[in-house]
Amino acid sequence: MAHTGKILVTGSGIDLTLLRPLEEAGNSIVARPKLLSAAELKAELRDAVAYLHGGEEYASGDALSTAESLKVVAFMGIGYESFVDVDAAKERGLRVTWTPARRPDAVAVFTLGQIIYANLGIRNRLDERYPPQWSAAVPMPSELSAQRVGIVGLGSIGSRLAGLLLTIGCEVSYYSRTRKLAETTLDLTYRTLPDLAAWSDILVVLLPENPSTVNIIDTSVFARMKEGSILINTARAALVEPVALGNALRDGTIAVAAIDGHYRDESVNAALMREFGPRLLWTAHVAAHTRQSMAAMVDQAVRSVLRALDNAPDENMAVGQ
Amino acid sequence: MAHTGKILVTGSGIDLTLLRPLEEAGNSIVARPKLLSAAELKAELRDAVAYLHGGEEYASGDALSTAESLKVVAFMGIGYESFVDVDAAKERGLRVTWTPARRPDAVAVFTLGQIIYANLGIRNRLDERYPPQWSAAVPMPSELSAQRVGIVGLGSIGSRLAGLLLTIGCEVSYYSRTRKLAETTLDLTYRTLPDLAAWSDILVVLLPENPSTVNIIDTSVFARMKEGSILINTARAALVEPVALGNALRDGTIAVAAIDGHYRDESVNAALMREFGPRLLWTAHVAAHTRQSMAAMVDQAVRSVLRALDNAPDENMAVGQ
Repeated sequence: MAHTGKILVTGSGIDLTLLRPLEEAGNSIVARPKLLSAAELKAELRDAVAYLHGGEEYASGDALSTAESLKVVAFMGIGYESFVDVDAAKERGLRVTWTPARRPDAVAVFTLGQIIYANLGIRNRLDERYPPQWSAAVPMPSELSAQRVGIVGLGSIGSRLAGLLLTIGCEVSYYSRTRKLAETTLDLTYRTLPDLAAWSDILVVLLPENPSTVNIIDTSVFARMKEGSILINTARAALVEPVALGNALRDGTIAVAAIDGHYRDESVNAALMREFGPRLLWTAHVAAHTRQSMAAMVDQAVRSVLRALDNAPDENMAVGQ
Repeated sequence: MAHTGKILVTGSGIDLTLLRPLEEAGNSIVARPKLLSAAELKAELRDAVAYLHGGEEYASGDALSTAESLKVVAFMGIGYESFVDVDAAKERGLRVTWTPARRPDAVAVFTLGQIIYANLGIRNRLDERYPPQWSAAVPMPSELSAQRVGIVGLGSIGSRLAGLLLTIGCEVSYYSRTRKLAETTLDLTYRTLPDLAAWSDILVVLLPENPSTVNIIDTSVFARMKEGSILINTARAALVEPVALGNALRDGTIAVAAIDGHYRDESVNAALMREFGPRLLWTAHVAAHTRQSMAAMVDQAVRSVLRALDNAPDENMAVGQ
């Protein structure tokens, strides 16, 4: 017989009508769209049977330790390892699920928009009066089709983006820990990360966040980049080491950076914003926030929760049996 | 023997090193990047042998009337009819040239960037703190690939843009005064302008400005559009009747509008900006301002000037013999 009870749902942007199947199965939904503190999360989990993780909070071993009825943490996204204490979940016998089948379109198109805006410097031209001002300090941009774009992480989003950039006419290369089949189907050049950094005019970071990818863009990578490069990070802020990013913006290695998400330490965000505001296209992890993309993600997570409460097998299980 | 003398160059964004062939032929360059008044233009033209028109000024019959040495007006762009008094030029025996072979990439990619920004509402999400706020007033956007895009004007830029949008996955239809071959090669649906307005989620205006296209997007077109539509005008402001645009923004027919260029009456721009600022992506006619696009355009105009001063034939001649 299926377990039922309270289901905690975190994160903004979730259409609660999509959670109806959970309610129809006899559960009650508690939605907490604002970022939960460690104490708030622990308190909310204490009487929950399932936890749809769609926020930025970290589900620590401590938070999970007193959640005695909890059966499943359904993470909405790919990089669950940075948001859930996987060892603690294993030890507790919890199931952790993820949503690997996310449609790549939303993030790929959002990223393309940020690439176009950053490359042409459009943000700082909005509301300008005629005639547009060009100078040695604000030179006319190069066309995107003449730029070399390096993609770090060639999953479904990176492959989709690469296809769009090739249609525009860019040269595209990529780095990934393992070589990808899309390299052949799209005719991309593989480069090591240092070589990709040196080769690219625009470097795009699209890796999931996990212990091996945090700070992957660090001082050594910035040191290889050309002066005036563009950095696009539409994955997670933590992939780019923030002190190195500040230095690269300060010394002109990076002309413009787009970041979709924040560093966990709010003072880091504030300092970067204060010093480099007009050269940043900074958004609050909204790239996947389209109706279609969120619906597909929530749908997978809801099915995973129902399977966990039924003790049924689930192909989207990252931890558990 | 070639005529030589003063060559007036207007408009910002012109790399003066590209004008060296004119100087090497014995001419002197007078560059006036700021918008010229009618009186200033008339004064500058009085002793000029050639006029590279890259600005927003109107070369009236009056301005041309006292330019006794003038041989050619080399217009940089397509829509010369709105910027040069063609009848006066004919009467004076002046040559008017244009740059029809402009590369479409710059404007097509700029337009795509504005479409992505407008569709996702990215401008108003910049610098937002976590968590991103969604509400009935700010609903989550639909993916671009799920949107219908209507293109008004299927020249080289419109065709290039249509190709990019089809790659993204949009449905694309178009209107043009005459049916275009690209309709077949790209598999686009032709619609009359009223039908296209009613069908589209995003309407993109890409016609050259001339007497038959000024105010082509008027009250009757807005009346057909769905509530919350997006209007992208990366051609010239004058294609959209400004009072009708204000009404459509006010009553919610248009959610967001991108405009690349200004109305000649500065008070019209100021009033729209004051009332609808955050819902406008307004730029000062910069879409073609990439190094590659400007170089190609200036190169054509320079060759046309040299041919005119040599009385040599020119395939880019719009008026003259």
